[in-house]
Amino acid sequence: MFKEIKISTSKKNEMIDITSSVEKVVNASGSDSGICVVYVPHTTAGIVIQENADSNVQKDLLNALEAMIPKINFSHAEGNSDAHLKSVLVGKEKTLVVEKFSLKLGKWDAIYFAEFDGPRERTFYVKVVEG
Amino acid sequence: MFKEIKISTSKKNEMIDITSSVEKVVNASGSDSGICVVYVPHTTAGIVIQENADSNVQKDLLNALEAMIPKINFSHAEGNSDAHLKSVLVGKEKTLVVEKFSLKLGKWDAIYFAEFDGPRERTFYVKVVEG
Amino acid sequence: MFKEIKISTSKKNEMIDITSSVEKVVNASGSDSGICVVYVPHTTAGIVIQENADSNVQKDLLNALEAMIPKINFSHAEGNSDAHLKSVLVGKEKTLVVEKFSLKLGKWDAIYFAEFDGPRERTFYVKVVEG
Repeated sequence: MFKEIKISTSKKNEMIDITSSVEKVVNASGSDSGICVVYVPHTTAGIVIQENADSNVQKDLLNALEAMIPKINFSHAEGNSDAHLKSVLVGKEKTLVVEKFSLKLGKWDAIYFAEFDGPRERTFYVKVVEG
Repeated sequence: MFKEIKISTSKKNEMIDITSSVEKVVNASGSDSGICVVYVPHTTAGIVIQENADSNVQKDLLNALEAMIPKINFSHAEGNSDAHLKSVLVGKEKTLVVEKFSLKLGKWDAIYFAEFDGPRERTFYVKVVEG
Repeated sequence: MFKEIKISTSKKNEMIDITSSVEKVVNASGSDSGICVVYVPHTTAGIVIQENADSNVQKDLLNALEAMIPKINFSHAEGNSDAHLKSVLVGKEKTLVVEKFSLKLGKWDAIYFAEFDGPRERTFYVKVVEG
């Protein structure tokens, strides 16, 4: 089962909870056991699995990533090398476990689309492989 | 094949070699070819694949990650935003290759449970998909 | 389908586009749908999916990673702890989507072998699982 899902971001840096969208694809696949890959086909965004209980966790993560960008001269003319770097640091694909027809996440896990160069119209892929 | 494995950590920051536990699940699956996903259902820990020959490599990695945490004011009341950030930077899921009934690791590769907010009782998932 | 591919690197830090090599394995597998794991069996190299349109993006990424290495005393006698850290930060395995007999990459996505301790003779694995 493969699904491409559209998402609109509204800020330069933002984490949007996409857990329910991913779960819908897993449910629709009818797979009782397997894996699920979430993939962002962009180079200035990422996928992060992190705590959803306190929104300050997401805020702290975005601020920390911003503070980690080194103060060097970037060559890329578009001027968004910071966003490319953040995408590499957090990663743009994650592989999840499917068990008993559901995503087998941790108690506090949520799946986030991490925007680092918004606002933009974006997409992400959800692929479920049974096994 | 799916297995949830318990592990006790004993320090705030620690890397524990879980390679043999993962290999046991691969062996028990009887899969001659496929992939194996190792997933941590916690948001202040991760999975790292790194050198096992010299324990100083793990020590250096933990010290370097600590030194990389930016000196900003974190908002998350629990006070462990550094651990959430480390989890995001190293990642909390890894996908491995299974070939000839075994994990196809590199010569120096070991799989580590990376604790960033211990000591705690933790778990990790091992999922093997044949194919 | 499993393939181990050799690659020679020529610099200490370098990103080499391996997209066509990975695609060849996907094509040879004859899989119309599934996933593809790219894995580096080394501990001082990684796999990065990033923009291929402007080579300055890769240059900026390598320079930024270099600038992010903290100035601490490393213990590992080989003296390449920086390369181990970079490998952990960018990751040494990536999972990709296969759809309609091809890798389902983004418009600007390329798959790079990221060398952090070259020049060396290296290898990477490509595993395709149908589903």
